[in-house]
Amino acid sequence: MANLEILSENRTFGGQTRFMQHRSSSTACDMTFAVYEPPQAQKQRVPILYWLSGLTCNAENFTIKAGAQRFASQHGLMLVVPDTSPRNTGIEGEDDADELGSGAGFYVNATTDKWRTHYQMYDYVTQELPDLIKAQFNVDGERESVFGHSMGGHGALVCALRNPGRYRSVSAFAPVCAPTEIGLGQQAFLAYLGEDRDAWASYDTHLLLEHATERLPILVDQGADDEFISALLPQKLAEACETYGHDLTLRMQPGYDHSYYFISTFMEEHMAYHADALTV
Amino acid sequence: MANLEILSENRTFGGQTRFMQHRSSSTACDMTFAVYEPPQAQKQRVPILYWLSGLTCNAENFTIKAGAQRFASQHGLMLVVPDTSPRNTGIEGEDDADELGSGAGFYVNATTDKWRTHYQMYDYVTQELPDLIKAQFNVDGERESVFGHSMGGHGALVCALRNPGRYRSVSAFAPVCAPTEIGLGQQAFLAYLGEDRDAWASYDTHLLLEHATERLPILVDQGADDEFISALLPQKLAEACETYGHDLTLRMQPGYDHSYYFISTFMEEHMAYHADALTV
Repeated sequence: MANLEILSENRTFGGQTRFMQHRSSSTACDMTFAVYEPPQAQKQRVPILYWLSGLTCNAENFTIKAGAQRFASQHGLMLVVPDTSPRNTGIEGEDDADELGSGAGFYVNATTDKWRTHYQMYDYVTQELPDLIKAQFNVDGERESVFGHSMGGHGALVCALRNPGRYRSVSAFAPVCAPTEIGLGQQAFLAYLGEDRDAWASYDTHLLLEHATERLPILVDQGADDEFISALLPQKLAEACETYGHDLTLRMQPGYDHSYYFISTFMEEHMAYHADALTV
Repeated sequence: MANLEILSENRTFGGQTRFMQHRSSSTACDMTFAVYEPPQAQKQRVPILYWLSGLTCNAENFTIKAGAQRFASQHGLMLVVPDTSPRNTGIEGEDDADELGSGAGFYVNATTDKWRTHYQMYDYVTQELPDLIKAQFNVDGERESVFGHSMGGHGALVCALRNPGRYRSVSAFAPVCAPTEIGLGQQAFLAYLGEDRDAWASYDTHLLLEHATERLPILVDQGADDEFISALLPQKLAEACETYGHDLTLRMQPGYDHSYYFISTFMEEHMAYHADALTV
């Protein structure tokens, strides 16, 4: 595979879990991602399901902890798990904070001088990486869905809302629903996008819902005991869906927190949800 | 709970995954373990299934990677996951090697001057920790089974073979079957047990099988592409079971390696196997 290095490969549920690295043109650095190739891909083109991870994560967290390969194997889905940011770019202070820079790309295309050369994560996850996957694996590029967690739940919803018709389904675990309304999101958007509030709005789910031209149903699981719930604002998602007529299934799960223990618990249902949309 | 500190607690598949710490009398140090309490334990006493981990692991690897909570919740089993050794004992060089000391207790009771004060892992996993679990949780102490991986597969088989009638079932993933026959095991046994070859034999599965008074069936999954297979010697297990009339199901799994990706793939079947024995 040109420009694509296999870092590791482990047989899992009859398929292969691989960590891979490539030189990315959109982020101008080496990017690592994980992919699970289900056994069905040996015989036929399979649909693609993207997972976008949360703050501080890389491709490992989901791949090791979520237990998704079991269901990807069962349903015949290719899982694609990008990193959450460029790494080792040389940008000053890129590793200094959990909330900005490495591990915190927020799935936006940065426009500020400091970040724009590398932090083009929106283009990376919606264009460059999908193009690479479609060129290199036995997938059906017309069948794609996306889901994610926390900052990656925000990413999944934003990708779906900005690309009507592109994804067959979207879901999220504990997504950041209104990044322009919380300090964490404001700080990141100011750094990456400057003062341009229209740009901020173009990456905010609860604002995007007003003008969305598609009515893709949205499935969200949210731990009722999530320690970060004040930064997630699921009520803003619920209000916007109610106001603008979007079909939201928001399930508050009593006792669950923000961890992958929560995610793993409801993974089977999310995988079945996407399989239903991808395999019709 | 007396002498028992909860380090973390996460709701998982309707139950609770907990990391806990206590002062151990057998190992004369603080010991950490993980426990998964299934939802059924709210209403009734549940059986106990012990997992013994491999070299370099602590209680986290299994708890995060194996995906066992899904099935423990389904079958109503308490999972108990001890650490693989004492830690921070002050023994000289305890952290210097992957194969000896921290992370490498081999589930024996050490007799040498250097190690015997702390390295009483056999007593810890067969007596002290079970006693603690039975005193503190809503379990049925008469229903116990044990399984494990690699060094912990050795541990599981040794625990079962040395305690006829104690465990309802035993299974292993890629177990060390003949530690006295490999350099790694010889080095550890020499350090922990000195030159006493009878003591060595009392912790070696393929030797214990000769004199075992019980015929508990043994289930083993082994990756055919396991990179450590020359230290595992499944053929020694197969030969001893054949020679001495033990009921062994040894499944060589093509393409699988030594990792938790392998373990997670066959976890459902092992959990069902133990549930069958524990819930009759």
